[in-house]
Amino acid sequence: MTGYEEDRDEKDEKMTTRNGATKLKKLRDLLRTATVGTDKKGIDAYIVGSEDSHQSEYLAPKDQRRSFISGFSGSAGMAIITQDQALLWTDGRYFAQATKELDPPEAWTLMKEGVAGTPTQGSWLASNLSANSNVAVDPNLISNMAWSAINASLVAAGHSFLALEKNFVDLVWGPDKPGMPSNKIVAQPLKYTGKTAGEKVGLCRKAMREESVTTLVVTALDEVAYLLNWRGSDIHYNPVFFAYVVVTLDELHIFVDELKLTQEARQQLKDEGVDPQYHPYDTIGTYLKERSTASDEKTWISNSSSYALHSNCGSGEMHNKLHTNITPICIMKAIKNPTEIEGMKKAHLKDGVALVKYFAWLEEMVKSGESPATELSGAAQLEKFRAEQADFIGPSFSTISAVGPHGAIIHYAPSPETDTPINDREFYLCDSGGQYRDGTTDVTRTVHFGSPTAFERECFTRVFKGQCALASAIFPTMIKGNYLDILARKSLWEVGLDYLHGTAHGVGAYLNVHEGPMGISWRPHPDDPGLQVGMFLSNEPGYYEDEKFGIRLEDIEVIVETATPYNFKSRGFLTFECVTLVPIQSNLLDTSLLTDQEIAYLNCYHAECLKKVGPLLQGEANRQALSWLRRATVPITR
Amino acid sequence: MTGYEEDRDEKDEKMTTRNGATKLKKLRDLLRTATVGTDKKGIDAYIVGSEDSHQSEYLAPKDQRRSFISGFSGSAGMAIITQDQALLWTDGRYFAQATKELDPPEAWTLMKEGVAGTPTQGSWLASNLSANSNVAVDPNLISNMAWSAINASLVAAGHSFLALEKNFVDLVWGPDKPGMPSNKIVAQPLKYTGKTAGEKVGLCRKAMREESVTTLVVTALDEVAYLLNWRGSDIHYNPVFFAYVVVTLDELHIFVDELKLTQEARQQLKDEGVDPQYHPYDTIGTYLKERSTASDEKTWISNSSSYALHSNCGSGEMHNKLHTNITPICIMKAIKNPTEIEGMKKAHLKDGVALVKYFAWLEEMVKSGESPATELSGAAQLEKFRAEQADFIGPSFSTISAVGPHGAIIHYAPSPETDTPINDREFYLCDSGGQYRDGTTDVTRTVHFGSPTAFERECFTRVFKGQCALASAIFPTMIKGNYLDILARKSLWEVGLDYLHGTAHGVGAYLNVHEGPMGISWRPHPDDPGLQVGMFLSNEPGYYEDEKFGIRLEDIEVIVETATPYNFKSRGFLTFECVTLVPIQSNLLDTSLLTDQEIAYLNCYHAECLKKVGPLLQGEANRQALSWLRRATVPITR
Repeated sequence: MTGYEEDRDEKDEKMTTRNGATKLKKLRDLLRTATVGTDKKGIDAYIVGSEDSHQSEYLAPKDQRRSFISGFSGSAGMAIITQDQALLWTDGRYFAQATKELDPPEAWTLMKEGVAGTPTQGSWLASNLSANSNVAVDPNLISNMAWSAINASLVAAGHSFLALEKNFVDLVWGPDKPGMPSNKIVAQPLKYTGKTAGEKVGLCRKAMREESVTTLVVTALDEVAYLLNWRGSDIHYNPVFFAYVVVTLDELHIFVDELKLTQEARQQLKDEGVDPQYHPYDTIGTYLKERSTASDEKTWISNSSSYALHSNCGSGEMHNKLHTNITPICIMKAIKNPTEIEGMKKAHLKDGVALVKYFAWLEEMVKSGESPATELSGAAQLEKFRAEQADFIGPSFSTISAVGPHGAIIHYAPSPETDTPINDREFYLCDSGGQYRDGTTDVTRTVHFGSPTAFERECFTRVFKGQCALASAIFPTMIKGNYLDILARKSLWEVGLDYLHGTAHGVGAYLNVHEGPMGISWRPHPDDPGLQVGMFLSNEPGYYEDEKFGIRLEDIEVIVETATPYNFKSRGFLTFECVTLVPIQSNLLDTSLLTDQEIAYLNCYHAECLKKVGPLLQGEANRQALSWLRRATVPITR
Repeated sequence: MTGYEEDRDEKDEKMTTRNGATKLKKLRDLLRTATVGTDKKGIDAYIVGSEDSHQSEYLAPKDQRRSFISGFSGSAGMAIITQDQALLWTDGRYFAQATKELDPPEAWTLMKEGVAGTPTQGSWLASNLSANSNVAVDPNLISNMAWSAINASLVAAGHSFLALEKNFVDLVWGPDKPGMPSNKIVAQPLKYTGKTAGEKVGLCRKAMREESVTTLVVTALDEVAYLLNWRGSDIHYNPVFFAYVVVTLDELHIFVDELKLTQEARQQLKDEGVDPQYHPYDTIGTYLKERSTASDEKTWISNSSSYALHSNCGSGEMHNKLHTNITPICIMKAIKNPTEIEGMKKAHLKDGVALVKYFAWLEEMVKSGESPATELSGAAQLEKFRAEQADFIGPSFSTISAVGPHGAIIHYAPSPETDTPINDREFYLCDSGGQYRDGTTDVTRTVHFGSPTAFERECFTRVFKGQCALASAIFPTMIKGNYLDILARKSLWEVGLDYLHGTAHGVGAYLNVHEGPMGISWRPHPDDPGLQVGMFLSNEPGYYEDEKFGIRLEDIEVIVETATPYNFKSRGFLTFECVTLVPIQSNLLDTSLLTDQEIAYLNCYHAECLKKVGPLLQGEANRQALSWLRRATVPITR
């Protein structure tokens, strides 16, 4: 799934009942009558962003505040509410959805990010508020980076930016607001993680010493889960749990609801060489404050952690005491160790079996013409095939099962109202993934059971050429991902086409399907440490014709060393190895546009799919799937 | 010429006499006995960078302070002198040269930038000085950006960073220090500039209003020359003159030695709608200080201007009053107007004639075997051919005329000691350019008059493939240059080769041969506004085998619109048009490595060279050159 969107979660969506006018009125009353700031006035503008206090991409129901107050359920967007205006900033993927969902529509102004002339939140506030206004935000729900940017604009314009722990959306939400999840935390054993929690903590301390810091604050939920070799289920699709960790040179503190801890998880942590001190989840702030007041040593807290926690560590006048780079865990987690690589490959092989079964079944359904499969029933069948595989936990995100024009909605999730039969006249785009104990998968195939037009065929071919060019790239170690992006687009650009999302995101090992710090996109990832052996990345160019069709091909690739005839300055050269094993529909390709290398690449890939997935499709029950796989992997010629 | 180096200027080099120990002792005595800072102590570390007070790339003799104090004459490098250490930071292109030149060698430590483990200047100072040290620099000779970076490190470590207008290297240099050049300033007429100074000032004011600033400070010498449609000769190879400009919403102030002004230049400026107020050159600082104290309006001064001028405009507590982006002139200058494009094309056509004559002459010289041409005599002959062309002013940089291993020294400039005959056993790399009234040129060709080895041939072919891939690129408007860089390297990377310099720099229109703000390189240009129609860029991949040979092919390209079959989201697609017209030695190519497209590209390019340059080589005197051109442009087949 492309890294720049997130799917709506149907279950969560139901919470947003259409009574936006009442909510806005309630919120404005609270803001007007508040007594805040040095002048004890009301709040002139209130900011409601998309994040929880761990700056997560996916949210638990309790944290979907921007969705609650605005009606808009997309993953990206920031709302600003004043006494007479309500504005929502979001990007191009969500303009149509936001227009449909904002509640009530007449009360909201949609601020189109990326469209020339749209001001940033900071500059809109700076120039639209009357003199000396109070702007407020919950400092737990905004990163230090975002706070700093808005604060600079507000200070320059003479306004005050207030960090108020009292959350005004929660006050409006009241008793209906969902509570903190209390799901169990389980151990992720060494046979999957390949590195004990003790070793990981040791590596953190090594990095801390190198940066002369004595305290490391870990706030991202996947970093906490990775470090402790624990997994949870507090957020749908993400095997994480609500907790913070503080690592010092000789102690480890975990801030978590201890009731969630299984005995097995506690014991494994001890066995893996970590003897932590437990604290209640919500005492992290006061703990950091006391710690930072008592000592003048340096603390490492990433700039993407909340402004609230930064303040507790002594930002502002104590700014020089903070080291704000991404944490060492972020990079450690991205570079998979041999055990994790093995697990990821196993998970992708199982995923390949499930997908081959699905596409074989789907072809049969479409061709037989009886009781047609639809976007929803297809997605359900695919989940069923995945669930047959060992150690399957659940989907890694909401399946994008999209027929025809729905494929052009990059974040499409089928619903009963939009559900469409999968047919032989339109493209069917299926972007899905699984969480397995040994790895996380994410794969997209676009198929057509009839005859696409020449233009559709050209687009499909150019998307494939882009995927092939990136997959075949040879590049020196430590090159930034952004630098490779053009390889995936070049073939589309040659005829004036493009796609408006990134090409690659990192993938967790039984963790979040999207993870940083690297990525491959037309915009640089500011924290990209450079591409290195053992990183897993998606490779997913696409083409989308609004209202008509969408094409995307997505594989997951692991970075490996490659032997080149020369080795300039001994830098070491790298390439990608594809771990996704699902045939690409080769009869959709216009072979006249393909080079010999591209044909060889496809044939070699298909031979690999047959060789690895075929043996797992033995027996009568798999006859149809094996037959489909054999047909789908026949080598092509010009 | 590659954008990441600068050539030593022979004339300037003579100033550096080898008495480094005496100079260092004198400087250290002055530093020790100074009484500076709040504690009125001496200076513990003194910083001597590579810049003049306009942050120029090329320097007038009076500004070559780092070269004077260290002996090292390369273009890039920063010296730091303490009582017991002297350090020079420079990058990979200069390690060998610095080792040879540093004076006395035993007194200096070479700090190798880009080599793992080499600290930045700031962090070296922070950790190597004893507590509460005084570090000093001449604030005119360091950009605000560089000052801020070093200052952050020093403040964090508890040291003081002092901006001392008294320059301690000048005190050591004494009366021998060359004076301010006093060359005449001449008008560059509208037939070359295409836009009056009045129009340019109007566009500045429009940009100023958009950014709500009331004062624009112009410090870069090429920006001053461009804005006023004046040219000078204060710096070798660069047609610029020492001056500053301050633009307000209704006034224009020029800070210049009025004795340098020709009547013609004054009159043209008036005729072009600008009626300036003149001030002595060295009153810019006090002028800005008074202006900023008298008003609290916002000033635009680029972050690459000196820290001294920033301070005068009210940096520090008044920081919010400064707008520090690149100036509007910087972008205006990079996007050539139709008159400038026409002039640049004319200049490159004339340059093509000169180079065709040169390579024809050179072939004859090498083949005849009598009185062989050398690196120096070849460069002199080339300048003679250029001087025959209309409106030739002089070279745009010191010619890189390099045989065999000298070609691997990317910044090589021949000297009597190293001068080598051009022969039929080794590559000959010639990188040169001309300043013409109608445009600035820069071109590199690598030739071989005998039989290169298979490896040399492969390298030459892969360099050509890279140049061809970049030249043929089709890309949406506003893409950053960094994004295209891989196209020029891909063919080398495929076999584990690379080159350690950027691929493209901007080129001025009868201005500096290197100009920003865009460029194409493996590292992003932070101020790149995105590639746009009318920008001129070099295209110069290379390959260098240390101690053996160097290969570089360099063309200048202008960005043009291109008609693609589709036009996604009406973004507009661009490509390059080559303005350099000099054949590439096609018999050095291994055609088995070339695609049909690459062969077609080369044949089409050669047909263009013949068609445009051929008609200018008529008559008996040009018989030999025309015959060479015809042979050099014969289409190739596989």
